[in-house]
Amino acid sequence: MTLVVDDVRLAHAPDRRVSVVCDDGLIVAIEPAGTVPDAAADVERVDGHGALALPGLVDAHAHVDKTLYSGPWVPNPGVGTVAERIAHERRERERFGLPSEQYVSALVERMIANGTTRIRTHTDVDPGVGLRGIETVARVAERYRDLVTIEQVAFPQGGLISNPGTLELLERAVALGVPTIGGIDPAIVDRAPTVQLDALFDLAARTGCGIDIHLHEDGSLGAWEFEEIAVRTIAYDMAGRVVISHAFGIAHPPTQQRLIERLAEAGVALATAAVYDVPMPPLLALDAAGVTLACGSDGIRDLWGPFGNGDMLQRAMHVAYRNSVRTDRGLELALRAATSGGAQVLGVQHYGLDVGCVADLVLVDARNAAEAVASVPPRRVVVSRGRVVAVDGALVVDV
Amino acid sequence: MTLVVDDVRLAHAPDRRVSVVCDDGLIVAIEPAGTVPDAAADVERVDGHGALALPGLVDAHAHVDKTLYSGPWVPNPGVGTVAERIAHERRERERFGLPSEQYVSALVERMIANGTTRIRTHTDVDPGVGLRGIETVARVAERYRDLVTIEQVAFPQGGLISNPGTLELLERAVALGVPTIGGIDPAIVDRAPTVQLDALFDLAARTGCGIDIHLHEDGSLGAWEFEEIAVRTIAYDMAGRVVISHAFGIAHPPTQQRLIERLAEAGVALATAAVYDVPMPPLLALDAAGVTLACGSDGIRDLWGPFGNGDMLQRAMHVAYRNSVRTDRGLELALRAATSGGAQVLGVQHYGLDVGCVADLVLVDARNAAEAVASVPPRRVVVSRGRVVAVDGALVVDV
Repeated sequence: MTLVVDDVRLAHAPDRRVSVVCDDGLIVAIEPAGTVPDAAADVERVDGHGALALPGLVDAHAHVDKTLYSGPWVPNPGVGTVAERIAHERRERERFGLPSEQYVSALVERMIANGTTRIRTHTDVDPGVGLRGIETVARVAERYRDLVTIEQVAFPQGGLISNPGTLELLERAVALGVPTIGGIDPAIVDRAPTVQLDALFDLAARTGCGIDIHLHEDGSLGAWEFEEIAVRTIAYDMAGRVVISHAFGIAHPPTQQRLIERLAEAGVALATAAVYDVPMPPLLALDAAGVTLACGSDGIRDLWGPFGNGDMLQRAMHVAYRNSVRTDRGLELALRAATSGGAQVLGVQHYGLDVGCVADLVLVDARNAAEAVASVPPRRVVVSRGRVVAVDGALVVDV
Repeated sequence: MTLVVDDVRLAHAPDRRVSVVCDDGLIVAIEPAGTVPDAAADVERVDGHGALALPGLVDAHAHVDKTLYSGPWVPNPGVGTVAERIAHERRERERFGLPSEQYVSALVERMIANGTTRIRTHTDVDPGVGLRGIETVARVAERYRDLVTIEQVAFPQGGLISNPGTLELLERAVALGVPTIGGIDPAIVDRAPTVQLDALFDLAARTGCGIDIHLHEDGSLGAWEFEEIAVRTIAYDMAGRVVISHAFGIAHPPTQQRLIERLAEAGVALATAAVYDVPMPPLLALDAAGVTLACGSDGIRDLWGPFGNGDMLQRAMHVAYRNSVRTDRGLELALRAATSGGAQVLGVQHYGLDVGCVADLVLVDARNAAEAVASVPPRRVVVSRGRVVAVDGALVVDV
């Protein structure tokens, strides 16, 4: 099927009005607006009315398995530490029927309607839930596969070394096709930092999977963990396949610049969610050093907290805001975290608004990318794999 | 005219479905839903379909005179300090036709459609712009007076003592009916902290106006300024009529608790905007001490920065987020900053969702106040002074 997206301005060249021709899910031509003739009957056209076209948004750090989205309002107890939040979730998740295919589906539909066409989601794996989360998310991913690509990280939320049986479950998840394994605060949660990291890198070496580690550890402890991860990334020749998520340690001023240089050397990327008041990766300094920064929703309305809506353009705004950037360039970098930075972390081929790329486009009313980030306009039209899948915030295709 | 808002749940009692009867701009009755009979022809009814009713939102700290809203996209140079931003604005405002009645009007319409029914806006006053900003905003305020109450602060953005002629302009503004005077970073901008504060309090004593001081000064300098303001508030018997806006100094841990106690003793309120990565007033500790916290938009799409949309429910979300609160109670306190906290700072009489209050209501799809803050739903219906003024994000009355 051919889709012509008429009269849009591409985010990287907002001064030209063009038509984007999509065929078999790819962008096959970009022509001056008004020059693509009305053709055969199997050509669908959508009029962009001069809207700005962003590439499909990439949510590089979600936890859709945890969500209560579309479910009951669950007051949060407001416990203070990561460890207490983990314990709270372990205690309560069964009671609320988590993981829930219904809630995950409702959330994924919202994410698509918000313009997200790629998701990396960290799914809890532990001896309690086993691989039920992985299986639940896999079913949802299969159901929505023509609209969004959902890839999972097998995530040892409750600890890896300190929670016997979890490492074996991670290995089983990888055997089932999960492409990436996660880690979590190797010092504070597992109290065995080098042991956890060695276990992760060994499993990756054996199976070929990638690694995406939650690191809430900050200050000098976080800085030390960064170094340990960089050392192993180089030793295991895993440049480009290791991500540090949250990465609070990078906000520690005394070691910030040295860490950034080490990340660049080792080929380790960062993913942030810019939630709450968490320490932020420095947008401009990371860009200057060539370190890839991705961005994600983190938890959305779950037992960890009540916030979130699966809107990656709003996430980009938070990344810019918390970095106190005001320039167009800064705003564009924040958008990059929610688009090509995420695509890079996910290893997406043929991503972007060029001929030959997968035809994922999001149309918004904004004069340029900077304004799109600063003002977070509604998503007028979402095109995924060359098909209009959402209009004005609602799905328009049957699933 | 009588308006019956049928079938809503009040934010402070979300488990009961009620009808709110408004007459002559006031709430005259609150009855169980379905029990208010269809009456005379001059009764308008609006069906809330079980929506949550919030009181009219209060933007207690805006700068509508500076806005470029609805105007051109102006890339921000990203200068680093408050002093540089002030200088940038002084240089550029004429070129962009600021203050602009057109832009101010467009922004005020957006604020109303977002559910704001009360605004305190700090209007630049200095020998360059004179009272043009005050007059511009006054014209807009007059035009929209049946939909929103806009009160001004005569604001010496460019300095008070260091900018000769400004104090006299403030006094003229008060003579014209402006109820409040502003101050700005008495140490860093004016380099004459006690002189600025004495000048403000003396003018207030002579004229009866209130005081609302911008304080970006942080750390021990900010803490010292807090104390100087508290001392004068007590000496001049101005409890309840002094506000410290932004108030970065309150985030300084070594002196935080002592300052909170002094603010409570002196009757000084705080206003925050929770913009960018600025230091945040501590929501829970202020509440525990009985210090009033209000919240505002700060600048919206102006020469200071590209962000902002005049959405006070989103502002409440940022206040909660930056305070890392997750409990219903914390979310409710954030909403209070954008509602009754602001109303208190503005000295509004008869504010709230009770019989006898001014009939300002905002209907949203949320189960309770906490969910409204966490999810920032669209504003379905805005009622101002007992009249439906906006539906689904657009004004429905002629102005």
